[in-house]
Amino acid sequence: MVKKLLITAFEPFDGEKINPSLEAARFVSRLKFRGARINALELVVERHRAIDAALAEIRRLRPDAMIMLGEAGERFSINPERIAINCDDFRIPDNAGNQPVDEPIVKRGPAAYFSALPIRAIVNRLIESNIPAAISNSAGTYLCNRLFYSVMHCIKDEGLPTKAGFIHLPRLHEQVAGKRGNNPSLSRETIFEAVRLSVEVTLAHLR
Amino acid sequence: MVKKLLITAFEPFDGEKINPSLEAARFVSRLKFRGARINALELVVERHRAIDAALAEIRRLRPDAMIMLGEAGERFSINPERIAINCDDFRIPDNAGNQPVDEPIVKRGPAAYFSALPIRAIVNRLIESNIPAAISNSAGTYLCNRLFYSVMHCIKDEGLPTKAGFIHLPRLHEQVAGKRGNNPSLSRETIFEAVRLSVEVTLAHLR
Amino acid sequence: MVKKLLITAFEPFDGEKINPSLEAARFVSRLKFRGARINALELVVERHRAIDAALAEIRRLRPDAMIMLGEAGERFSINPERIAINCDDFRIPDNAGNQPVDEPIVKRGPAAYFSALPIRAIVNRLIESNIPAAISNSAGTYLCNRLFYSVMHCIKDEGLPTKAGFIHLPRLHEQVAGKRGNNPSLSRETIFEAVRLSVEVTLAHLR
Amino acid sequence: MVKKLLITAFEPFDGEKINPSLEAARFVSRLKFRGARINALELVVERHRAIDAALAEIRRLRPDAMIMLGEAGERFSINPERIAINCDDFRIPDNAGNQPVDEPIVKRGPAAYFSALPIRAIVNRLIESNIPAAISNSAGTYLCNRLFYSVMHCIKDEGLPTKAGFIHLPRLHEQVAGKRGNNPSLSRETIFEAVRLSVEVTLAHLR
Repeated sequence: MVKKLLITAFEPFDGEKINPSLEAARFVSRLKFRGARINALELVVERHRAIDAALAEIRRLRPDAMIMLGEAGERFSINPERIAINCDDFRIPDNAGNQPVDEPIVKRGPAAYFSALPIRAIVNRLIESNIPAAISNSAGTYLCNRLFYSVMHCIKDEGLPTKAGFIHLPRLHEQVAGKRGNNPSLSRETIFEAVRLSVEVTLAHLR
Repeated sequence: MVKKLLITAFEPFDGEKINPSLEAARFVSRLKFRGARINALELVVERHRAIDAALAEIRRLRPDAMIMLGEAGERFSINPERIAINCDDFRIPDNAGNQPVDEPIVKRGPAAYFSALPIRAIVNRLIESNIPAAISNSAGTYLCNRLFYSVMHCIKDEGLPTKAGFIHLPRLHEQVAGKRGNNPSLSRETIFEAVRLSVEVTLAHLR
Repeated sequence: MVKKLLITAFEPFDGEKINPSLEAARFVSRLKFRGARINALELVVERHRAIDAALAEIRRLRPDAMIMLGEAGERFSINPERIAINCDDFRIPDNAGNQPVDEPIVKRGPAAYFSALPIRAIVNRLIESNIPAAISNSAGTYLCNRLFYSVMHCIKDEGLPTKAGFIHLPRLHEQVAGKRGNNPSLSRETIFEAVRLSVEVTLAHLR
Repeated sequence: MVKKLLITAFEPFDGEKINPSLEAARFVSRLKFRGARINALELVVERHRAIDAALAEIRRLRPDAMIMLGEAGERFSINPERIAINCDDFRIPDNAGNQPVDEPIVKRGPAAYFSALPIRAIVNRLIESNIPAAISNSAGTYLCNRLFYSVMHCIKDEGLPTKAGFIHLPRLHEQVAGKRGNNPSLSRETIFEAVRLSVEVTLAHLR
């Protein structure tokens, strides 16, 4: 049976004109994966609207797997996230100006949810392909973590069949080339291949 | 008239199995550049033998331009070096065990030589191509700087016609993928393209 | 009534000869705090013995508050940790050679526990005192996180009255002075004052 | 005979309200050093006026030694500079809005001057005192390097008796506490003691 995979990405934020997650989601959604269908969903960088859109789509599609992608500007490698925590603490405002401090995402929700993606297998596969990758133990407390937590909570709460998780991507070279200071970044080709391999490993683990 | 360009690179050191400078020099020496001939020279990571080999080749070949390449493990971008200084101060031993501290490279030699490569034009060209690049103001005090200084001194001292300079390269992804910690690196494709463009810009400035 | 505060610290590890947490715990345990008694406990860097010793002491003492201290070599500031996660994934072996990978600390335990210390108030108080400080969203997956999680689980599970949490400390200057590379560190005076202020704020919040 | 030591420092720049060099120069100028008299000079962060003021003072005072201090925001340790290079390439404008690119400081001046301070002895003395310190091989291409080069050139050109050099200082804790991101910094006490020891070592080497 054909597997359904939902991939989400964010619009640009924090003054950037592109977002590697969006570029990668668009790229991957045009590829063919044997025995699978990919749906891509672009999210605004707004505290409430992003979550509403993601939850609506997961309820509608009921995908077998869901890979949420996001940009993390200071990361050196592809980072499958291990855990989502029940806390909003935005270090910068979102694109609608929201900046919550130390607030729970879901009142009386559990402190955290672990990723249901095969994060160790993804990291191992990327390293074999000479792509820098490491499990990250914190998705932060900005919108990426909020989305990740909200989705995991929804899946648990509503008994959805989806294996979901979040992968943070470094910036693209074009976002940092020419800027002051030492800014880690990866090439478009490397980020695209990393996301393609992550989809492959995720699909292989569904069987 | 056909221009002669000499490109040098180092063998692996500091426990590494590859050196991005060597990979890039081999790649570029197989390409065709209109109106130019490329000679590549591989150097050992030994304080005296490396310099002897480089000076012998520059005297023999009398190239129009010379691009020295080397690996700099902590760099985030392609770094054309601005200046070579008259100082050996090795933070690690070379492959023959030499580790000089605060010694002049050439007794009574000038304090420093500026690069004769078009370093600003190279950096601008790389950034236009979405490759992270920046002028570096220190080639360190290890063998890379020693080679750079020795070559510039020889050219000046012996009146050779060569426009020479040094470019530091970050590590390749395959050197850091799977290692502990945050290690900057670039893809093989990016480093190769960066060196190819550097050769192109250098040749264009000879005319 | 006199409040009881338990402070724990670790012995040196990873080739170091000192541990800032141990130095700070010894310093603070010699100070007088109005209306409070401080007990200090030194822990070995061993996966099982460290936890056994800490849990035995918390059950025996039943403190009002517990501040666990640990060293985090790459941190730039004093880091009260926000959350402990149910995962052992040691990037280096402990002092007894244990190196678990992706294992739960407590089988079927909750994914995570939030700190019960006033972490925002501690950070604010340190910054007012010109000490670099920030809430950290990950205590890692080494022994520090294991201790933090195990203690929070024990408190919850056994209904103990203790407000507990973990604070990561950067290295001391003397651990990095003269070493290769860029290593963040703080002075002994700064770390001691930071821990003293953290105790003060914690005690103030008990009232 | 009493030795004369001139110490220079800069006013705040780049949006900062204080400059560690100025704080340290003021502190040290109030101390007594056996057999020596300290003069302190505060410089504006302006390309031409800073140099004019420094050269006027060195010609007037003809000090035995001169320690120039400056702030370097990304440094982790006290950095006696090894060399000044003949290049202005300001990454940010100075306080008067000047931002030269790749210009020589002195037309037809030598490429560089080495520090005449006992930089290795200073670094060793600081490390013995548990203060992070390292020789730096680049003072950058901003006003700090411009001052350093201009002073060394003046001393050489005019045959002055002064042993001069430059020491870069990290930011003070109070400049970074509470700011986003990982910002290295040192305590006021550590920076003051580092500069005091640097003066001591410099004076000892004059004898």
